[in-house]
Amino acid sequence: MSRLRVAPDRARELVGAFRDRAHLVDRADGFVGLEVWQNDRDESELIMVSHWTDRESFKAYMKSDAHRISHGRISAELKSDIKLEALEHLHTFTVVAQ
Amino acid sequence: MSRLRVAPDRARELVGAFRDRAHLVDRADGFVGLEVWQNDRDESELIMVSHWTDRESFKAYMKSDAHRISHGRISAELKSDIKLEALEHLHTFTVVAQ
Repeated sequence: MSRLRVAPDRARELVGAFRDRAHLVDRADGFVGLEVWQNDRDESELIMVSHWTDRESFKAYMKSDAHRISHGRISAELKSDIKLEALEHLHTFTVVAQ
Repeated sequence: MSRLRVAPDRARELVGAFRDRAHLVDRADGFVGLEVWQNDRDESELIMVSHWTDRESFKAYMKSDAHRISHGRISAELKSDIKLEALEHLHTFTVVAQ
């Protein structure tokens, strides 16, 4: 899970970038799915959640060319805007109940 | 999404309570699913995520007897332990990309 904060006037662009994503991760070993959430009361707060079958698959993807290429598609301007306002880095969780 | 923090020695009990949940919510209108996540590096941090088809269904459930009964099953002792250490109240998000 990553929590991102962008300037309100960039939120639409960031959501658009996720909607138009390259889908390279969809073919990664162990990938289950991802969702991007936008706070109902604060459009500048977004959370990206990806589900994996196991931690090792996730770590392998994070080091992969597919990950590098996916991130390379985001404009440098938008990327720096997200980075500067990032609230939290990546956190990993185990699904313990459903 | 609710983020909960409990004393480390209560985390196992809290996870157990979620695993043994009454499943009353499963029959609520608009309910899609729920997951409980436990931080890989800090077992005392848990996140509960529930998915709904629409905000109104979620709000109706939160006011329902089913919700009240589900929460009534948690021991008062554990509940107060969670409550005291709650980091964040409920936040709602819209899934904007997948």
